[in-house]
Amino acid sequence: MTAPLHEAHPAGPGRALPDTQQGMRRRNLARVMHAVSAEGPISRAAVASRIGLTRAAVSTLVDELIRSGLLEELGPERPGRVGRPGSALAVSGRGPAGIGAEVGVDHLAVCAVDLGGRTRSRAVRHGLNRGRSPRPVVEELTELIRRVVAEAEGEGLWPAGLAVAVPGLVARDARTVVRAPNLDWQDTDLGDLLPSGFPLTVDNEANFGALAELWLGDGTPRDFLHVSAEIGIGAAVVVDGGLLRGTRGFAGELGHVPVRPDGPECACGGRGCLEQYAGEEAVLRAAGLEPDEDRVGLLAGRAAEGDEDVRRALRDAGTALGVALTGAVNLLDPESVVLGGELSGLAPWLLPSLRDELARRTAGPACPVSVSRLGPEGPLLGAAHSVVRAVLDDPASVAERAA
Amino acid sequence: MTAPLHEAHPAGPGRALPDTQQGMRRRNLARVMHAVSAEGPISRAAVASRIGLTRAAVSTLVDELIRSGLLEELGPERPGRVGRPGSALAVSGRGPAGIGAEVGVDHLAVCAVDLGGRTRSRAVRHGLNRGRSPRPVVEELTELIRRVVAEAEGEGLWPAGLAVAVPGLVARDARTVVRAPNLDWQDTDLGDLLPSGFPLTVDNEANFGALAELWLGDGTPRDFLHVSAEIGIGAAVVVDGGLLRGTRGFAGELGHVPVRPDGPECACGGRGCLEQYAGEEAVLRAAGLEPDEDRVGLLAGRAAEGDEDVRRALRDAGTALGVALTGAVNLLDPESVVLGGELSGLAPWLLPSLRDELARRTAGPACPVSVSRLGPEGPLLGAAHSVVRAVLDDPASVAERAA
Repeated sequence: MTAPLHEAHPAGPGRALPDTQQGMRRRNLARVMHAVSAEGPISRAAVASRIGLTRAAVSTLVDELIRSGLLEELGPERPGRVGRPGSALAVSGRGPAGIGAEVGVDHLAVCAVDLGGRTRSRAVRHGLNRGRSPRPVVEELTELIRRVVAEAEGEGLWPAGLAVAVPGLVARDARTVVRAPNLDWQDTDLGDLLPSGFPLTVDNEANFGALAELWLGDGTPRDFLHVSAEIGIGAAVVVDGGLLRGTRGFAGELGHVPVRPDGPECACGGRGCLEQYAGEEAVLRAAGLEPDEDRVGLLAGRAAEGDEDVRRALRDAGTALGVALTGAVNLLDPESVVLGGELSGLAPWLLPSLRDELARRTAGPACPVSVSRLGPEGPLLGAAHSVVRAVLDDPASVAERAA
Repeated sequence: MTAPLHEAHPAGPGRALPDTQQGMRRRNLARVMHAVSAEGPISRAAVASRIGLTRAAVSTLVDELIRSGLLEELGPERPGRVGRPGSALAVSGRGPAGIGAEVGVDHLAVCAVDLGGRTRSRAVRHGLNRGRSPRPVVEELTELIRRVVAEAEGEGLWPAGLAVAVPGLVARDARTVVRAPNLDWQDTDLGDLLPSGFPLTVDNEANFGALAELWLGDGTPRDFLHVSAEIGIGAAVVVDGGLLRGTRGFAGELGHVPVRPDGPECACGGRGCLEQYAGEEAVLRAAGLEPDEDRVGLLAGRAAEGDEDVRRALRDAGTALGVALTGAVNLLDPESVVLGGELSGLAPWLLPSLRDELARRTAGPACPVSVSRLGPEGPLLGAAHSVVRAVLDDPASVAERAA
């Protein structure tokens, strides 16, 4: 089985590499990359003191990373600093780039992110994908990917990998969409349909959204539950800075946690699942509205206008979320819950009843619930950044490919 | 914060050790110990081929482990084998021992387990601990610990650590019982009350039960949910061979997952929690029985005799467990669910309705549910073995203390 590119290394950067002299060198290359990425521009001496290696050892590693095009030297530091002036290092703005792509129910999007985390190119195409077969959808996505890659290459970048977010369950092979009910896809190997030539990772949009929150969010803890939604309700469980994937890769199905055991039947085979109370279509139904292409926009617009039916429907959805999250918090004891994805646009009307319900069911202080700043951008950014993180975690593998 | 002794090393034996030459030596010592523990008696050559080091490197490591009293040489292998006869290695039967202890609601127990996993000494004291203050209970436990340690020392063993299982929530300091409602203890630092002189770890009994299942169970997967019960219902989440602990150390509170959001009030502040339907006292109440000292024994006895009220009460408890586990399985996607602890004694009457409910609520094949062979012994064995595993995971630290 190919390990997904974005799988967090359980014991820190590069730690999953073999425990030999060669492995140690690779891990130290990763430490240098992470130090420069987090703190750069930074001198060799500062890198050495940060990661606890000698200045000489760091210089050898830095030289190798510069030769591979992963780091660049910005020239002598500004005068006025104490000691001999050193040359400041930064991650390269012309090196490898992470290509992120997203198959949404009603849009396709692709972006390229450089090692410094800057989005360098971006393309979006709106249009309903629901019910279309995978091939034409992936052909359109491929067209966007080629456009974004060409633009990135024009700026001297080269694609280090492609990560694709989909609204469905993905097998642990990180290629096969097992079930995406809101696209009407199943058992689809996207590896056969997407452009080859660079490493590919396909994952659930909730997982990529959670990783984006972890890497790009504002003070996000390393243990949290990320709740997102398109039409369904998904969640991702982040434990100690890594995704909990589950045996088949299906962990995080918050939408099918029973809220009322005798409630309405659900497509999953269960009854009274959270999705029957807080999924976008359930909320539209409860508010007496027809499904629309822009479901969240419709609900948010009506709620902002003061439509009492919509507000009540969202309040009830928040209560149902509170019941399901009480169970999840009891099982997982996360540091916080973050509402992300499309759901974040409805947060003003969901949060009060959601928080009340959680507090009502908790003896001590309730688990804090916050709203992602990334919102619907999360999955696409998470996908692109997962490729960038993989480069930082094992720069040697990329250097070999670049050579 | 002191890392709990039994915390699984995330990237395999000894991997959490520092990434230096010295750290590499320590990790290789751990690899040798694990190889001998898993496969012994075994020759140096077989260890070398198993862990991928040269015979010479392994011999140096083995000599060090023999000097520290962690391995022993059994003398030349039996003739008839191919090649030059080697000396078979085994873990020492006279080296460090893990001392496990358990504070149960109605009993205290202590045991000593050697590096080979054999229980070498054991002491139990029956009597209700509910409502007694921690000091006299821990004094009685300490008396049992001294007796077991003396007996182990009489056989040439020495205590490498003490691990104590309690029926309550334990803080991540691995000393403080934050809340044990069924003992009526809270915010109790057991480190102040237990004998000093060796490393101490206190943990929830459900966690130790799950670790016992992981290490001693029959083909237990590395991702499972372990459900146990004394009076409350606890669970432990095992992910990739390690415990998911949660931010405060409180993960696994399956007993407070809402089953019916408008159900009876629960001491946790919630309503309709699983414990209100499947906790031992709820089941006794539903069966019209008075609480008894041996609650499980009473229920199992009546159910075996064919008491229809008791059987119905257990069937309903199984259904409620099925609802709560549907939620847990959707969130965690474990490979299996294992019923352990006292709950395993009631499995014949809980399992059919539990499995039905899980299957009814799952579109594909339902998550398999099995019953622990260790039963109520799990937590005590898990505690003792956690100390033994810590020795195998970092033999150098123990060798230093033994020296």
